[in-house]
Amino acid sequence: MVFKVIQLYKHTLHNVVLNSANYIKQLQLHYTTRKYSATMKFLTQTEAIKIDEELFNEYKFSVDQLMELAGLSCAHAIAKCYPTECFKRVLVCCGPGNNGGDGLVCARHLSLMKYEPTIYYPKKTAKPLYENLSHQCKSNGIPFLHSDPTLESTNDDFDLIIDALFGFSFKPPVRETFIPITEILQNTKIPIASIDIPSGWDVEKGKIREEDFEPDLLISLTAPKLCAKLFKGKYHYLGGRFVPPTLQEKYQLNLPAYIDCNLCLKL
Amino acid sequence: MVFKVIQLYKHTLHNVVLNSANYIKQLQLHYTTRKYSATMKFLTQTEAIKIDEELFNEYKFSVDQLMELAGLSCAHAIAKCYPTECFKRVLVCCGPGNNGGDGLVCARHLSLMKYEPTIYYPKKTAKPLYENLSHQCKSNGIPFLHSDPTLESTNDDFDLIIDALFGFSFKPPVRETFIPITEILQNTKIPIASIDIPSGWDVEKGKIREEDFEPDLLISLTAPKLCAKLFKGKYHYLGGRFVPPTLQEKYQLNLPAYIDCNLCLKL
Repeated sequence: MVFKVIQLYKHTLHNVVLNSANYIKQLQLHYTTRKYSATMKFLTQTEAIKIDEELFNEYKFSVDQLMELAGLSCAHAIAKCYPTECFKRVLVCCGPGNNGGDGLVCARHLSLMKYEPTIYYPKKTAKPLYENLSHQCKSNGIPFLHSDPTLESTNDDFDLIIDALFGFSFKPPVRETFIPITEILQNTKIPIASIDIPSGWDVEKGKIREEDFEPDLLISLTAPKLCAKLFKGKYHYLGGRFVPPTLQEKYQLNLPAYIDCNLCLKL
Repeated sequence: MVFKVIQLYKHTLHNVVLNSANYIKQLQLHYTTRKYSATMKFLTQTEAIKIDEELFNEYKFSVDQLMELAGLSCAHAIAKCYPTECFKRVLVCCGPGNNGGDGLVCARHLSLMKYEPTIYYPKKTAKPLYENLSHQCKSNGIPFLHSDPTLESTNDDFDLIIDALFGFSFKPPVRETFIPITEILQNTKIPIASIDIPSGWDVEKGKIREEDFEPDLLISLTAPKLCAKLFKGKYHYLGGRFVPPTLQEKYQLNLPAYIDCNLCLKL
């Protein structure tokens, strides 16, 4: 009994120390990011494309690797902003390119974290990577919508929407296939978390049309793009903790420092 | 001024709530894992090989994807046990197979987390995946040893050793190339973190020779192997948070539940 009390005391003491350390770290984080954000680079579309190419060609990363880390960091940012208790049912809208791939990876990790994602993937890409990512989702028990959702069904059936439609290589206008979902994103009252770029926005100029939507959360991958300067939503996170220091220096990204093991960082 | 005080008060209150929630979660974790550990499956070598094959063939994961997640979870477990302030200089010993690949990935993530890893990779594998993983390490500024380390240089130059030599497909005896490093691992006083299997151990029976070393930390990937039951070191972690629920059920893994966004779990 005495032993147990001592053990519990030690355990409690350990936790108090740990929590104090966490508290100090959070304070550091709070002030550090504020400081760094001011000098952080916001990328043009050309710079974003160049950095991406360099990661694959010069640094020899595979798409699989970086997409896994990017999608995972998005799932973490989402979990930090939207606890599973209140935002369990997630509609993940995936486009045909890499942004959609990040969405598929994100959905799989959300599912492992006890969310209940459903995937809307209106224009599937016939490449092994995308077919495998879809298969992984299906075999993790994630359902795919077989028809276009309506505004009503979206509002009724989901608590959160992930917008993984278009990324940094998007050039307007939005193609016909994606107009129905874009209209839902514009009119829904459910919070939207956009991966890298709010879909439909100009990568550099932000909203280009009156009806463009404002996401609640924006997760900038690698480094924020110029449009992120105009983001007025609730949360802005940085994700994609894989940028080699020499690449950060070359493009003078001035990324704020990630804390401990965190794969995403509140900006 | 008053506004600032209110802000600070709110911030402090928020953190107290957050820390209390964390404390409760840690207590839950403490007891939950104890409870689950009792029924958790420890895999035979054949089961481990089968599960691995199934992840690639049935679930269509690529080696790149799973290796990235596995190596990342190892880096996280290491960071939880060995803070960078005291264990900055890390010798990462990589074998020729997938275990070595996990080590290369782990080294890269440790480097992004402000550790200073050095890689010892005595038998490089001439496959694009391994060449790319090595290239990624080099271009992240991680040095490779060009000659075998000695016991003395290891003790002097490093604070921690990562053993990524042999994984679950290892069959004794240790091949000649790896005898010098195995002897260092047996005789060093520096803590050793073993990825999946302590190198040289029998995957099922554990230590087979008097001189086999006991790592300080063991990170079991996917699910622990039988030898982990005989592990007497300080820390045992579970990593590789990617096992689909249906696969967990098929092999009745009874894995304890990962908490929140954590990629590893103390057992």
